[in-house]
Formats: sequence, structure tokens, C-alpha cells
Amino acid sequence: MTDPIPTPDVAPPDVVRAAYMELIVSDLAASRRFYVDVLDLVVTEEDDEVIYLRSLEEFIHHNLVLRKGPVPAVAAFAYRVRSAEDLDRAVAFYSELGCRVERNTDGFTKGVGDSVRVEDPLGFPYEFFYEVEHVERLAWNYEKHTPGAIVRIDHFNQVTPDVPRAISYMEDLGFRVTEDIEDGDGTVYAAWMRRKPTVHDAAMTGGDGPRMHHVAFATHEKHNILAICDKMGALRISDMIERGPGRHGVSNAFYLYLRDPDGHRVEIYTQDYWTGDPDNPLVTWDVHDNQRRDWWGNPVVPSWYTDASLVLDLDGNPQPLVTRTDSSEMAVTIGADGFSYTREGDTERGFKLGEQL
Amino acid sequence: MTDPIPTPDVAPPDVVRAAYMELIVSDLAASRRFYVDVLDLVVTEEDDEVIYLRSLEEFIHHNLVLRKGPVPAVAAFAYRVRSAEDLDRAVAFYSELGCRVERNTDGFTKGVGDSVRVEDPLGFPYEFFYEVEHVERLAWNYEKHTPGAIVRIDHFNQVTPDVPRAISYMEDLGFRVTEDIEDGDGTVYAAWMRRKPTVHDAAMTGGDGPRMHHVAFATHEKHNILAICDKMGALRISDMIERGPGRHGVSNAFYLYLRDPDGHRVEIYTQDYWTGDPDNPLVTWDVHDNQRRDWWGNPVVPSWYTDASLVLDLDGNPQPLVTRTDSSEMAVTIGADGFSYTREGDTERGFKLGEQL
Amino acid sequence: MTDPIPTPDVAPPDVVRAAYMELIVSDLAASRRFYVDVLDLVVTEEDDEVIYLRSLEEFIHHNLVLRKGPVPAVAAFAYRVRSAEDLDRAVAFYSELGCRVERNTDGFTKGVGDSVRVEDPLGFPYEFFYEVEHVERLAWNYEKHTPGAIVRIDHFNQVTPDVPRAISYMEDLGFRVTEDIEDGDGTVYAAWMRRKPTVHDAAMTGGDGPRMHHVAFATHEKHNILAICDKMGALRISDMIERGPGRHGVSNAFYLYLRDPDGHRVEIYTQDYWTGDPDNPLVTWDVHDNQRRDWWGNPVVPSWYTDASLVLDLDGNPQPLVTRTDSSEMAVTIGADGFSYTREGDTERGFKLGEQL
Amino acid sequence: MTDPIPTPDVAPPDVVRAAYMELIVSDLAASRRFYVDVLDLVVTEEDDEVIYLRSLEEFIHHNLVLRKGPVPAVAAFAYRVRSAEDLDRAVAFYSELGCRVERNTDGFTKGVGDSVRVEDPLGFPYEFFYEVEHVERLAWNYEKHTPGAIVRIDHFNQVTPDVPRAISYMEDLGFRVTEDIEDGDGTVYAAWMRRKPTVHDAAMTGGDGPRMHHVAFATHEKHNILAICDKMGALRISDMIERGPGRHGVSNAFYLYLRDPDGHRVEIYTQDYWTGDPDNPLVTWDVHDNQRRDWWGNPVVPSWYTDASLVLDLDGNPQPLVTRTDSSEMAVTIGADGFSYTREGDTERGFKLGEQL
Repeated sequence: MTDPIPTPDVAPPDVVRAAYMELIVSDLAASRRFYVDVLDLVVTEEDDEVIYLRSLEEFIHHNLVLRKGPVPAVAAFAYRVRSAEDLDRAVAFYSELGCRVERNTDGFTKGVGDSVRVEDPLGFPYEFFYEVEHVERLAWNYEKHTPGAIVRIDHFNQVTPDVPRAISYMEDLGFRVTEDIEDGDGTVYAAWMRRKPTVHDAAMTGGDGPRMHHVAFATHEKHNILAICDKMGALRISDMIERGPGRHGVSNAFYLYLRDPDGHRVEIYTQDYWTGDPDNPLVTWDVHDNQRRDWWGNPVVPSWYTDASLVLDLDGNPQPLVTRTDSSEMAVTIGADGFSYTREGDTERGFKLGEQL
Repeated sequence: MTDPIPTPDVAPPDVVRAAYMELIVSDLAASRRFYVDVLDLVVTEEDDEVIYLRSLEEFIHHNLVLRKGPVPAVAAFAYRVRSAEDLDRAVAFYSELGCRVERNTDGFTKGVGDSVRVEDPLGFPYEFFYEVEHVERLAWNYEKHTPGAIVRIDHFNQVTPDVPRAISYMEDLGFRVTEDIEDGDGTVYAAWMRRKPTVHDAAMTGGDGPRMHHVAFATHEKHNILAICDKMGALRISDMIERGPGRHGVSNAFYLYLRDPDGHRVEIYTQDYWTGDPDNPLVTWDVHDNQRRDWWGNPVVPSWYTDASLVLDLDGNPQPLVTRTDSSEMAVTIGADGFSYTREGDTERGFKLGEQL
Repeated sequence: MTDPIPTPDVAPPDVVRAAYMELIVSDLAASRRFYVDVLDLVVTEEDDEVIYLRSLEEFIHHNLVLRKGPVPAVAAFAYRVRSAEDLDRAVAFYSELGCRVERNTDGFTKGVGDSVRVEDPLGFPYEFFYEVEHVERLAWNYEKHTPGAIVRIDHFNQVTPDVPRAISYMEDLGFRVTEDIEDGDGTVYAAWMRRKPTVHDAAMTGGDGPRMHHVAFATHEKHNILAICDKMGALRISDMIERGPGRHGVSNAFYLYLRDPDGHRVEIYTQDYWTGDPDNPLVTWDVHDNQRRDWWGNPVVPSWYTDASLVLDLDGNPQPLVTRTDSSEMAVTIGADGFSYTREGDTERGFKLGEQL
Repeated sequence: MTDPIPTPDVAPPDVVRAAYMELIVSDLAASRRFYVDVLDLVVTEEDDEVIYLRSLEEFIHHNLVLRKGPVPAVAAFAYRVRSAEDLDRAVAFYSELGCRVERNTDGFTKGVGDSVRVEDPLGFPYEFFYEVEHVERLAWNYEKHTPGAIVRIDHFNQVTPDVPRAISYMEDLGFRVTEDIEDGDGTVYAAWMRRKPTVHDAAMTGGDGPRMHHVAFATHEKHNILAICDKMGALRISDMIERGPGRHGVSNAFYLYLRDPDGHRVEIYTQDYWTGDPDNPLVTWDVHDNQRRDWWGNPVVPSWYTDASLVLDLDGNPQPLVTRTDSSEMAVTIGADGFSYTREGDTERGFKLGEQL
């Protein structure tokens, strides 16, 4: 790690969970078709410029904000904190880090009150809020549930060049690493970090950044995820299915990756495991283990490695990218210079990968 | 509430989650057949006197201890705390309450280190521990998973005469109420309380107590619970299925209640909802709402209301029972003096209930 | 069996499958809410007097006809036959039996062509048809599927006083018995008979008849059936859930019984087994086996035994009932004179049954 | 079609269903590990040379025979016929076609009686049998079911150069086409044909043949198939997962393709639809429709198109291959000269396919 981010003297805000993402989309109607008509997220409120969406078991105003704008990007990764006082802590924490900090007592989005937005040390627009409007939790409203019922927001996945540097900062913010991907030389390719007691609220994926890799929503069961695929086939938009469905090695969750009309990546995710014990064991995966990303060994499509969304600064301009200098996971695992094994020690490559390249 | 339990001046221990129950069983071999051969819990360790069992995603030594003894009962409801220091807090908290407190630096069970056991103000044997032996987390060991795969311990359900009195004490211990059942006159019939961000770690059910109503384990999906029923049918032990499977109103979880060879009640449970926000809305159910206990309106069998397990004091003797003086949920909802409605305001009784009595 | 029905000399029609039921309903709007808004059957066509419904994988015009009428009853149990010539065979077969036979070259319902309706020897209005309008098979239209997606009609269940007499006639009609319920004295309580290679197209249940016990529709998976229950809870019509969900002993299928606004019983059913081999083994269940009707030993509600729908003659008048003189399944299995065992040879009754009565 | 196979004057045998396959395997112990330890098929009988396996709902002696031999290949595609007389019909039918026919009154495998084996006009070793030993149907033996429970054999898939020629012959044998894949020029790439009322008992895939593409077994639900993948990951044999899991366009079934230790391909399959009506609509798919093979548009791996198993003549020698002269499905759909669309009329290629090549 070069250029480590110093640990502030002040305490970080007490983050409860990843709560919502604000996305800039180029065509609000097209995005509405995807998130509302295809994914069946619930509209809390909407107008010509912005749509506020939530999942079926949510009781706060929104888990996703779609805002019309010129450049598809992420305007905010928003975390709920435990109390109003945690906003003061967020201001102090990021101020000490020398970050740009803005506080808006009326909130940056509808439904949310006093909030702090920062350009964090990695270049991401992080938001912290406590005050929020309560809306109807539709958990029992099964008459509104669809086969692919999305019940919660689960996590954010962020692309950043130096994963250990990001981990160190996130640990200062109170996050704890649950799993990571490394190689034998100490290069860290990705790490999963949590506040709520699941595998993550935020993952850091090594690559040119700051960029947003994906935002993830949860269903109750695996068949819900399969139903989303079936519906997208029926709607003849199967080309918006990028990867999966499959079982992750990391997190042990069942997953699906979609791309929205602007290319923003959305994961549908279910059934990771309890990580809330203070001594929850860290799980480290070898980057060459072909089951780390997909437990069934199905190949990761290159776009999943290369594509990600821009993020905005607090003026609404895209953040410039910093290039990753460590090895890329794609390069070391597939192609001429990389390799992946099904069984540690195998020297032959599996037929699935072999025949595709 | 009569005879309220005073709030201690000292801080309570920081409880992480319901972690294990110690059950006294009369026939260890018969209990092993039920918990190991039928429910497929994993044996961590066993000898002629005691069996230590865990669920598939657990990494601590056990979630259930079966100990051979003369009287079927509960010897401990054990909670994991956040740090070693929380044991001191537990001692101070219960000492201030005037409770009997025992500390065993070697642990009361194998695999667990320094522990505190108390006879709590309600008469329950509560344990608090931090030190614990780590064992293999079998989350990814799908070759060991069975159709009814149990992945976590979820909660305890306790019977106590005065529910508001119990709530007040549990709130002092740091628990938060997520749901309850009341009537229009202010009688509280049951309450669900959590430390981990699910609906509960402990529920308090009104009745003669202290007794243990059930211990609950979680599966990933609903079909896992159905598979347990199918298997019990195949083994010709369907008479050990007491109630369900069904969908709870309270908690919104899918459930099944079994009775072990000593009559100890075990719930299999899946898919309640996130409650970890500080302002998570309390859900209050009307005791006359026929969907509160089963969302589909299927009747609760009387044994489910009347039967429960004894609990032991720290000498291993059964605690005497205190009679509930408030109305009983069974009496106010079924039978000549009770009523349940499907739709609020309905004066007719549904045919399911009507025809059965 | 008294008064056996003679075997005709002529060949029976070649029945392909149970294809649709015509139900008389007292309130068409209320029935539409149940079958269309709750069960999500697809409307092929409708007017002020009649609604034609089909399941999602059906390609013929309808599987259910709801016709407004003064007396809730069944107007037709309709079977598809293999060819136009089978209508002539149907006429000859039932004419030889001395039954009233009507042929309508324009069909008795929309969407169906040349058809034969008879008052069969048991008093049921049976229809046979080949010509039928094809409509869109919505199997791939997942954008129209709901969580409780019903994909096929499966079978009819009929109440008749003398089951062996009914079996003999149905075998003459080309049906084959797959399972039955008997006692040690040779009394037959119910039998399941098939043309298509599943457990049944028609079941005969012993009781005062002719009456219709239920019509069954199939889903793909068990969670689809659970979703129907969840939705009915959300709509506060859980009192229309009569029995289940559960696993049948007979047929090994997963089931749910509902009652429509007129009390007509509908089963939702999934996952019985292949019976199409010529020597498919007959499965006989002991009437005292408590797992025969529900593999998990959950009790059958009395209404399920006692209630059934009237059937109409070809003039539209209800058929008078003939009383069953053999023992009733309810009487021999529950209550003072009956018994059910979980394990053959058990003399104690299971707690579930015992505590309910 | 060149060189059409003449229609015999005699009636074909009445085929009930695809019943079993006899596979030659090079390492019986390795094959046993795959079919018994991984897939949990049930061993009916075994010795040092051969293993007889069945699925959980089967009542005939076997659905799969593994026989040790020098060359991995298929020794028989065996169909159950309706009666003993159908064996005479099989002899007459194939004799008229000039095929080599052998009849063995003791059966070619254990558990099966009088049988006929032929080298059919396409070069495949087809068997017809009626007499068979009944064994225990384990449908209700849930204590033996595993998460990936396989309940039935479903179909055979065969590779043959000229699909229309094969269809014509199979129709003479009494099969009916349910679905096919064509292009606008009349080339037929594959066809699905059934005797039992599902999508198929046999599919014909265009390619150099005669070869066996796969044998398919059915589960009840989709999660059963996912469980097989999870288990193969846990056993570190994910490289034996060739393609899927996914949803087929053709058949609408949920699928998974595995390769056994000899490379024989096995499909796990669930939830196609009823095809038993005499006028069941044929579904024709455009070869360029990217959702025909996978409804979600996930790419077909090349090995799935190119690899298949040899088949044996009645002396046990591999049949020589005849080259397909029509276009290959792989060539017209992927690569420089092929194309696949998500939406008919699309001129752009979807990113999934585009980025992989």
C-alpha cells in the first residue's frame, strides 16, 4: 500500500447499514421500465426528474434514487447511521481526513433529513443520514409481491485501485473485513466489509477507480432470482443479464448480475451467512481458485471485470480515474498469462475455460 | 405490571446473539436420533453423557447441548457477548438485581471458556460467554447438507407470567421489542425482542413460568422446512410434528414446530426481516386477529399453548412455576369465551375454527 | 358392490385427460375476484353471464367455465378425447348403458366444438369433446406469471356412495386405478384413477352423491402454493383456506384446498409421479393410517369430509343425492368410534389428534 | 432429406417411454462415484462388471446401466413398450426396414426379460422391452432423498447428420414432434419428439452421427438442480459442470449439463409442459434466436455442440460416423459467419456474446 490514509483521532460515525444509492440516469423513462416494470421495486414518490424506489421489506423512504442527468454515474452511496449525533461524528471524521464535506439539514434527497455528504479519501461520494421518513413496510403485503420479489437492499461494490489502502480506511470507518481474494505474493484483489452482520455492506474491487461496480438487492429465495431471469427472457431483454445466475464462492450467496439501461450494474443476491460475532473468521480465497467468483466454476464474463460506473464529486462532476498498478484479477486468472484451477495443484485447465478461449 | 424489576445502575453486558441452549434429556440415544438422524444437526463432540451439536453455518463449538439427566428441562439459555469484559458487566448487572450469579472460568460446557450463569429475575438460567472454541463452518460443505439443512440457531422462546414485567427487564438488558400481541384492554400476551437485527433472539410468551416454550433453528428456504416434514412422515414420526408448517403473522417467518422425545419444542424457522435500524417500527397484533399466529388462519393446536419445558436453577433443580394471572391467549381466542376474526369487525367465525370445536 | 353397472359391449371413447369443469356460481363478480384476482387464472373470454378461464400452460380455450346461475353446482366434468370419432364412441357407450345422452355439434360452451354430454351411471354430468379453439399458451410469458402461477388443470374429485361400483364403471370407461384407501374388511373409501400418466384425472370419494368434491389445478413448485396462502392472508381471506398446505400420502403430491365464494372446493396440487407404465403398481392405503391423507399427520378438517358441491342433470336441475351405506372415512378415523395410527400397531393416539377433540 | 427411410407396412411397437440407457464406462469405480456418490442415483444391483441404477420414483429395475468396457460408448437406448406383443411388432418393424435385429428372451441386462435390440436405420442401438422386474418405488422414502433428488429418467438426445430424415423415421415409430429449431431456408437443426406426454423421449440434434448427445434425468424442483451444482463445487469437481444451470427456450425446462468421468453427458432437467393432446401445437424456434437454447441468453459452450458419445453396434463395436452436410448450429449462430439476436430484427449483437469471442 502506498500513500496510506491516516487514521483520524476522532471516532467514526456508527454506520448501521448500506441504505440507498443515488444513481444518475440518462433516460428516466427507460430506467423506470427497468427498475419498476422489470424488477418490481416499489415507487415511494416520483416526478419528472427523479424516482424514489424501495424494496418490499423496507420502511425508510427509499433504497434507490434515480435522478435524470447528463452523465450516468453514482451521486451517492448512502449509509444509515445509528443516531443524529453520528452526523457530527461524520463531519469531524472526514474533516480530519481533509475531505470535502457538505451537510444539508434538509437532506440531499426527498424523505431524508439532516445529512452529510463527503468526497471520501478514495474519491467516492459517501452519504450519512439518520433522519428519514417512514413509509409502509410491505413485508406482509403479499398481494403486491411478484415472482422475483426484492425485499432488501444488501450492499455496494466499489472499484478502487489499491484494495489494502481502501480496507485500512474502511476499517477506520468501523467496517470489518469478512472475506477477501489474494494471491500468494500478497496482492489483494478484492475485499468484502460489513457493518450489518452479513458478508458486506461494501466491497472493494481492485481496478481503475473510483467507480461503482454494482449495487445489490436481496430476495428471500433462489427461485426469486431465477424468476427475474425468466421474466427478462419473456420481455426479450436477456441481453441485460450480464452474468449468472450462480453461486458465489465468496459470500456463499446465490447471485445474478444485470445491467440497467445506462449500464449501471445491479446484483440480485440471496443467502449469505451470519458474520456478526466479534471474532467472525476471515475467509481468504486464492485468486487462482476457479470457484472463488462462481462456486460452480462458470466463467466470469470480461465485461464484469472491466465495466463499472463513474462516480460524481459533490459538484456533480465525474471523478477522474486512478489506474490500478497491482495485477488485475482478470489478467492473472484467464488468458495467456493467467490460470485458474478447480482443485489446488491441478496443472490442467478445466474444459469449460479451456474451450472458451 | 406488578412487582417491577428495578433497572440496574450498571450497564448490561453487550449481547451479540442467542448462541446455544443446554437441554437436559432423559434418553440420550433417543435425543441423538431426533437431533442428529432426523434434523441432521452436526455433532461437534459427544460422549456417554452429553452431545454437542451445531448448525451448518456455525463456527462456534455448539448451538445445542444435550445432557443426560433425570428431569427433562432447560439448563441454560446461552448468549454470546461482544467481549471478555462483558462478563464482568453481566456479573455486576445481575448482582445488582440480587440474582444468584455463578462464574466459571473454564466454562459450564465443553468448547466454551470463561462464562457467567445466573438465575435471572424471571427465574430463567441465562448464560453469557465470549471465549469459545472455533470449529469448521460447514457453509460451503454442500456434500454434507441434507434437504432440511439447518444453518443457524435463531432464537429462544420463554414462558413467563407477566409479559410487560419481562419486557422491562429485557430492555434493561439491552433488548428491543420488535413485535407484540395485545388486546384492546392493554393486556400483553407475548412480545418478541432482539439483539441481532432479526425479529428476535428471545420471545416472551405469557403463561405459567418460568418455562421454555421453544428453541428455534433457521433454514435458508421454505422447501427445507417442508423436507423435514416429509422425512418425518417417511420415518413414521409425524406425531412429533406439533404445529405447522405455516407462515407466521408475527415475524412474517415460515415455521414448523416439532417436539423432541422429551417433549422439548423445537421450531424450524426461515425468512423474517431486518430490524436493525434504531427506529425499527414496532408491530403490534390484536390477540383476536386470527392471522397473528398463522397468517393463513390455520388453528393453533392447544398443546402449543399449554405445553412447555421446565427450566433449572443453578443447582440443577426445576424452578417452581408462577401462575399467570392475566388472561390466557388460548382462552380469549378460542372456545366458548374467546373469538378470532379473519377481518377486523367480522362477527362470524371462520369455518375452519368453527367446525373444529 | 350392489347393483353393478354392466360393462358395455362397445368400446369407450379414448379419453386423453380431464380438461375443464363448468361451474355454476351465484355471484359472477365474486367468483371472478377469486379465480382471476386471487388465483390469477387467465381470462380467455368473458361476458355478463360467463367467464372462460385457463391456466398458464394451456393451449385450449378454457379449463374452467364460471356460469352465473341460481344454484351453485357443477354443470360439467369435461374430458378431452383423442379424436372426433371418440364422440361417436361416447354416444354408443353411454347409450348402451341407458344413460341420457345429448350431443351438440356447436359445443355446450364457447371455444369447444362438437361435444357429447351425458348423465353418467353415477349421476354425474360428463362431457366429451375433441374440437376446441386453440389459444395462446402462456408457458414462456413469464411477465404474466405470478408467485402462485397455476400452469395446468390436473383432476376432478367426485363423491359417490359406492366406490367399488364407481371404479368398475370408470375402468370400463378406460380409467386405471393408481391408489386407493381401504380397510381390512374390504371397504373402499376412495380411489384415484387416471387416463393421463399421473396419479389421476378423476378420484372417487365415498359419500352421499353424486357431488363434486373438488377440481384441482397444478403449479410447478411447492413455493407457488405457499405463495397463494400468503396472498390470501394479505387479502384477509384466509378463511377461504380450508385445509393445508400439506403433503398427501396418497399421490405424494403437495396440496392446498380452498373454497370459492360459493363453497366450491379447489385444490392446488403439485408433484405427483409417473403412472403411465401398463403395470404401474397400485398403492393401497389403510384407512386408519394417519398419514394417508396428510403425510405429516396433520388432521383433516371435518368440512373437508362433509362438504361437496351439487351436480346438475342435463336440464340444469340438481341431481338428488344417494346416501352412502358403507362406513364413512371420517367416522372410522376420528371421534369416539374411529382411530388413526402413526405407526401400524400403535395403540396410543398421537397427540395432535388427541388434543384436538 | 436424401435417402429417406421407407415407412414400413407393419405397425410399430407401442412405445411407452424412454426407460433406461446402457452406458459403457472405462472405470467402473469412477463412474460409481459420479452416479451414486454425486448424483445419488439408487443402486438396485451391482457386481464387478456392471451397476444397475434407478431414480427415486422408479419402480422398474433400472434407468441406467453402467457396464465396464474398453471404449466409452452407449450400448443401448432402451424403451419400455406397452405389452409383450409389442416385441413382435418391433421385430417385424425393423426387419422390414432391413435392420439387424436381435431378440433375447432372457433380456440383455439383469432385471429385464424378453427384449429386442436393433441397429436402427440411423445406426443407434435401440432396445424394446416389456417384461421387467419391479423394485421398490422410493417416492415416499424421503429419508433417502438428498438435496439434488433425481426422481425420473426423462429422455435421450441423439446426434444424427440429417434431422428431417431422422424425424420421418421416428414418426413412423410413433413419435410426434413437439418442438424444433430451423432457419429461414428450411434447414432443421434439431427436433424434440415424444411418446409420453412431455416435450420428449428422444431429441435429434444435427451433427456427425450416430452419437449420443445426452441422457436426461428429472428432479421435482429447480433448487434440486442448484443443489447438485453446489455439491459439485464442494467436491471440487465443478469442471464436470459443462453448461448451465439455465432455463431452456426449447421445452421451457430448467436444465443443467454435466459430463461423467468418461465424458458422457448427463442432463438434469425439470418442468417442461404437457404435450399429450393429439393437436399439441408444434413450437418452432429460429436458429438465430439467442434465447432458443438458453432463455436467458447465456452462451452455449462450444463443447456442448461438438462433443458426444459413440454408440455401439450389436457386436459391441463403435458405429462409424457419418458427417453432417447441412449447416451446423454452432457455425450459423456464433463466430465470424454466424449471428444470434435477442430481439428479432436486432442488428447489434448482445454484449454477452460479443465480449466473449
